[in-house]
This record gives sequence, structure tokens and C-alpha cells, in this order.
Amino acid sequence: MEMKSIIEKKRDGYALTKEEIQFIIKGCVDGTMPEYQLAAFLMAVYFRGLNKEETAELTLAMADSGEMLDLSAIFGMKVDKHSTGGVGDKTTLVLAPMLAACGLPVAKMSGRGLGHTGGTIDKLESIPGFVTNMSREQFISQVNEIGIALAGQTENLVPADKKIYALRDVTGTVEQMSLIATSIMSKKLASGSDIILLDVKAGSGAFMKEETDAIALGQEMVEIGLMADKETIAIVTDMDQPLGYAVGNALEIRETIEALKGNGPEDLLELCYVFGAYLLVAAKCEESLEAARIRLIQTIKSGDALKKFVQWVEMQGGNPLVVENYNLLPKASIVMDLISESTGFVERIQCEMIGKVCQKLGGGRVTKEDSINLSVGVVLHKKVGDRLEEGDVLATLYGDDLDHMKEAKDMLFSAYHLSKTPVTKRKLVRWIISKNGVEKY
Amino acid sequence: MEMKSIIEKKRDGYALTKEEIQFIIKGCVDGTMPEYQLAAFLMAVYFRGLNKEETAELTLAMADSGEMLDLSAIFGMKVDKHSTGGVGDKTTLVLAPMLAACGLPVAKMSGRGLGHTGGTIDKLESIPGFVTNMSREQFISQVNEIGIALAGQTENLVPADKKIYALRDVTGTVEQMSLIATSIMSKKLASGSDIILLDVKAGSGAFMKEETDAIALGQEMVEIGLMADKETIAIVTDMDQPLGYAVGNALEIRETIEALKGNGPEDLLELCYVFGAYLLVAAKCEESLEAARIRLIQTIKSGDALKKFVQWVEMQGGNPLVVENYNLLPKASIVMDLISESTGFVERIQCEMIGKVCQKLGGGRVTKEDSINLSVGVVLHKKVGDRLEEGDVLATLYGDDLDHMKEAKDMLFSAYHLSKTPVTKRKLVRWIISKNGVEKY
Repeated sequence: MEMKSIIEKKRDGYALTKEEIQFIIKGCVDGTMPEYQLAAFLMAVYFRGLNKEETAELTLAMADSGEMLDLSAIFGMKVDKHSTGGVGDKTTLVLAPMLAACGLPVAKMSGRGLGHTGGTIDKLESIPGFVTNMSREQFISQVNEIGIALAGQTENLVPADKKIYALRDVTGTVEQMSLIATSIMSKKLASGSDIILLDVKAGSGAFMKEETDAIALGQEMVEIGLMADKETIAIVTDMDQPLGYAVGNALEIRETIEALKGNGPEDLLELCYVFGAYLLVAAKCEESLEAARIRLIQTIKSGDALKKFVQWVEMQGGNPLVVENYNLLPKASIVMDLISESTGFVERIQCEMIGKVCQKLGGGRVTKEDSINLSVGVVLHKKVGDRLEEGDVLATLYGDDLDHMKEAKDMLFSAYHLSKTPVTKRKLVRWIISKNGVEKY
Repeated sequence: MEMKSIIEKKRDGYALTKEEIQFIIKGCVDGTMPEYQLAAFLMAVYFRGLNKEETAELTLAMADSGEMLDLSAIFGMKVDKHSTGGVGDKTTLVLAPMLAACGLPVAKMSGRGLGHTGGTIDKLESIPGFVTNMSREQFISQVNEIGIALAGQTENLVPADKKIYALRDVTGTVEQMSLIATSIMSKKLASGSDIILLDVKAGSGAFMKEETDAIALGQEMVEIGLMADKETIAIVTDMDQPLGYAVGNALEIRETIEALKGNGPEDLLELCYVFGAYLLVAAKCEESLEAARIRLIQTIKSGDALKKFVQWVEMQGGNPLVVENYNLLPKASIVMDLISESTGFVERIQCEMIGKVCQKLGGGRVTKEDSINLSVGVVLHKKVGDRLEEGDVLATLYGDDLDHMKEAKDMLFSAYHLSKTPVTKRKLVRWIISKNGVEKY
């Protein structure tokens, strides 16, 4: 078998065999496949696509390229929730303790963020002392003990994806549906959970700008999951404005704790109830979505979810007092309120621009090597549908560099579009994709 | 400027600017452009193509990437003839002395062959002592003295093409019309001739299997040449069977000498008359194609072309006695006549297979590093339209390894297709492409 012929086969629009796909991934991981051949192949895939079988085989070969986590030592069904990435998305941080409080174990591997804000790991690390680096044994015994653990991905989890993603990133081959699906799903399959819930974001702050693309990606991923015998549900949700109000690592931890205390924001909690309900039903912890939702709401009302969060933070070395004293979180040296000079209804927020505001303030990474300022970010005060008066605080910026903050201010104002007439609020949860097909929520 | 955006621009079907193309070639030559980005770019070009302006700019940037030969010290118009490559093609070896005998200087840089047989340089090197390695000064003074010189391409002639071609060869991006045109024409422009004649082969033994593709390639190359202010003529010729009868380095030298002595083969000489006539008219040495043809025929009849060949061989260190004694050429240790077991008319010869026969015998290179056996090859006795009787010699194999010869024998028989009824001979010269457009010959 030789790579040149495989490239030509894909270039000419033919489907590759399982053996050919395995040959590519093997060569990619053992270093025998030159990067230029891999790059040419990826561009051919960009133009020709992959069919269902090729996508599934590629995902399996990638998942199998390194360590496959064995979570069988954890009692009961293990669930994993993954988001395709959005602005202000702290759902995992709120949902995981809620599920754990319901008795459903959450064993999650997470990556560091590349983009506007950090990833879940970065956010958690803004809690003083919090550690995400742990052995397999620690990870498993923690889940068995308190029902929740979140660890950083090891180098050896899906090494093929690391290599391929790095190459796609510099060769203009990121935006290909099947390649996106294989990248996400190979990591999910290698992470060993029984039930996978995928939050596929759609809108100006998401990777998929169009809802139809988000649906298609969700379908591809659910198909891969089902072929690999994993219960897989994809939920298409709105990312045309940030989730909640806070964008920035420590700021999002504060909002997470407030949500666990039952103080909203509404959209963040709603997402947790919807996702949690599907997971509880899939894991057979509840018979209906309605009953599951009631149980999830109860974990907030009773304070059980917050208690679980405290236990989790403590178990991973973090200072649990943060839940009572936000001053223990990293603090920005400059806080700047942005005052509106107009009156109207918020019609649209260019969501990606809000992410860029956070990045401008130092809260995101451009390359893996970048350091990240955990204290900075933005807290919005108005979202789509809200009425804004001249003189109202539109948003608050948290930063350490006044020049960057001035630029961030202009960017933030430019992201807001007002209307003279009232605006309908956006629908948050759009589509449910599962073994039953695509259903409107 | 950054390569990722350029790749994405081409991927999305937009035309690149002159500056972007120059950026690619600069990075390619100075080593700052990673090969994986170049490979992804080439695959995007495979799918999206290049428009006329992009093709011309790329050719100019490539030509300019290394040494640009200055032939102004050679008196008069300098001509160059290039073939896109075929089986048994020894036209340059016959035509160059004919033109020199007419007083038209031929200053040719040539590459080593990759493929079924060697290139022109390899063929010449089967003459004992023949050297193609010479300084610029030697090259120019030899053309001024005897009207003919043929040298190997230096490392520094179009280094961008060397790099790009090597990459295309292993990434499935060879078969793209504009890239083929830029590769050929960048070398022609850097080689400094005033008039360029391109023999574009079409058929089963050529790179372009379809005549329409050959015409399109010819048009692309003529357009590039004209944009660079070079008189450029492309002639589409048949390569659905080998040219002449001999295929293999020393065997082709023998056929070359026979042709210069006026002993045919007919098709080889016809090609030389046609090409030579166009060149003599383009160089204003003759007013009409008819007059030019008569003059070319005269160089054979008078023995002037043969004398020029002898002078040329001597001047480049070769033993001129080969023209009288073919035993001075490298000789294969085994000669095997292949006897036909059928009767009929030769309807078709799978021309590429004849090339593979030569390669199987050791007469061609697969990689640049391969050594080549100059003595081996095949001499056909029958071509398309010829009548074949059971018991006739169909071809003679020259080899050094009996096992390879047995395989070559089967391959050769499989290449011949017979018909019960008479077959029309193939038309050799098909289309003339010049500043006047595409004309049927």
C-alpha cells in the first residue's frame, strides 16, 4: 500500500477501504507518513468529502491510535458531555455537579482551549490550587468516590488527532464536516464513556455559523457514535449571543457558582436542565424528560449540586472557599463600565466579536504556547431582546492593560446592534439528533 | 502575507495576485515555506485550477527562481525544441544537427529522464566519452563555433520547479494542466532561447492520453511563451505507438545515426522535417515551410547533418567513430527475437507498455537515484498498419537478465493488438498551435 495512490483515489472521488484508512493513521502516528502527503490528502478530502463508512472507520482508527480509556472500574453508566465551542460556555461546570448529585457519574477528559477564552480546564484552574493532572487510578477512584472528576487529556489520547488537527490548522482544511466530526468523536470514543451528549452550537459565535451545518455535523457525529455502539445524542443550540453574561475564565467560574446557587442566568440553567434530562433518561435514571427535569431543578433548589461542586473542587486540590468569597479568584486590576450612548432594544450581538474582546484583554490563546490571563474578560449586562436606555451600563470590562481595554471597548460597542422596536428573545435549544433522527425541540 | 490565507483563497476558487504567487515561490526556494503547506496548495490548485494570468505569473516567478541563462553572446536567433515525452523519441538528436547544418544555432539544456527510457542526456551518454557537463562559457563558445551544444541542466536552473515537481510527484498533483505548463515553460524561459518549439505528444504512450488535453496544454504553453515575448509554437503529434522502431538508450542512438544517413525511419524523419520547417521560418532563415522542408531534406541527402552530428559528438568528448561502428556503443549480452504466433494487421500498440518493456529490461529510471542500463531495450519490427505473418519477427529484445526478458516478452506480446482486416496508418502530425491560434495540420 502506498500513500500516493491513496491520495489519488480520494482526489478522484473514490471511497477508501478500512485498510487504507488504517494505513494513513498508522503512518501518521508512527511518523512514517510525510506531512506533505497527509496535507495533500486532507485537501483532497476537503473537496471530495468522506462517506459514512469512511468517516466511521477514520474515527475508529484515530480513537485507536493511542490510549483507549477503560472506565469499566467505575460503577454504572458513565456520561460525557461535549460542546463544539462557544462564547461564555460554562455548561459543563454547572451540569457535571448536577448530574453527580443525581447519582450519575461524570468522568470527563477535557482539553485546553484554543480561541477566545480558555477551555473548561483553564476555567477550573482559575480556582486557586485546582489540579487537573491526575493518574488513571486517581481519576477512576475519584469518580467512584464522589461521582465526578475532570482531568486534562494526556498526550497519548488520540495522538493521530493532535497531528492531523495541527496540520489542518495551517493548511486550510479545518472547515470540513467529516474531518470535524472525526476529530471530536475520536476523542469521545477514546475517553471511554457509555453515553455521549454533544452540544452543537450554531450561530455567529460558533464554528458552525449556519444551523443547517450544525444539524449536519450533529448527524455525522451521532452516526459515528451509534456505529461504535455508544448511545449518542447531539443537541443543536443557539450561539448567536454568549451563553450567560460572563466571558472570561475566572468571571465564568463566578457565574457558574451563582448558577449553582440558583441565581441564574436563565439560559445557562435551561441548557443544563435540557442536557441533564436527556442524559438521565439515556442512563435510565429517569423514565421521562419531565421527571428528569424536576429532579435536576431540585439539585439546585436543595443546594445538592453546589455541595457536589464544593466536594469536587476540594477533591482536586482547589480552595472550596471560593464559593463564598469571589475575592479568592484571580482579579483584574482595572474594571471599566461601558455606558450606552443610545436607546433601543438589543437586536443582535456579534457573538464572535465578544469572544475577540476577551482575547484582546488577554483571556484567550492564539497558539498552544500562549499564556492566558485568567482574571480578565467581560460581563455583559444586556442581551438580545433587552431594552437599553442611554446611560445604562451595557457591559463591564475586566483587564490589566488600559490600551487593550480601550480597543476592547470599541470592539464591544461595535458588536451590539440596536433596534427601535421590541425584539423577540432567541430560542436557545433548536434540534435534538439521536438514534430517532432529527427532531425539532 | 501568510500561506494559510493564500491556500484558503485558492481553495475557495479565487485568483491569486502576482505578489501572492511570488511569495509562494520565494518561500519555496528559500526553504521558509513548509512542504505541507505547499502540498495543500498544489492540491487546491488541482481542484480549482489557475487562470491565464496566474499561470503566466507562476511561470515567470519560477523561471526567475534561479539562474536565467543569457545567450546573447550567441550570434543570431537561438532555438529550443522540447518534447512532453514519449516512447522512442529521439527527435532532438536528429533535428539539432539538421538545423545546425542549416546555420540555425541550437543551444539546448536538457534534463535526465524519469520514466520508461532515459532522457536525451542519457541517450547521448551511451556514446563513449560524451560529456554533457560544461561551463556556460564552453556552452556558448561551442554554439558559436559549430552551431550546436547540448548541456545538462544545472542545479540552479529553476530550483522552484525541482522542488514543486518532486512534491507533485508524491502528492497526486502531477496531472494538472496549468502546473504541467508552468513546469515546462519556466525551464524554457530560463534557458534563454528566442524561439521555442514544443512537441506535445498525445496518445497511449504520452502523458496526455487525449488529443483535446494535448491541445489545451499546447495552448496554455503558447500563451505563456507569447506573454513572455518568446516566439512559441506547439505541435500536437501522435504518440499512440513508439516513434521509430528503437526504444532504449544506445539502440536509439543507432537509429538516430541511421536517420541522419537517410535510412529512415520515416515517421522520425517526417517529424524532424515538420519541426525544422517551422523553426527555420520562425527564425526567418526561410520564407516558406515548403522551402524550409526542401533545405532540411538536403541536409540529409548531402550528408551535412551527419557531418554536423560527428562534429558535435567530437566536440563534447564522444567517440565519433560510433557512426561507422555501432559495436562501439554499449551492447546487451542477450538478444532475443520475438516470433509472432498469429497473422493479421497491427491495429494498435499499447505504447506505454512498450516503454514499460524497456524499463523492465533496466533501461529506465523510477527514481532519480536509479542507475540506468544504456545497452538494453527493444527494437520493434512491425508498427500500426503493418501486416504480420505467423513466424515473422515482431520485435527484438536486448537485455542482460533472462528472467526480466521473459517478463518483458509477455508484456510486449500483450501490447500488440491485431486485426483481420487492413488497418490505416496513423496520422503523425495533428495540430499546430501558435500566435495564429489552433490549426489542423
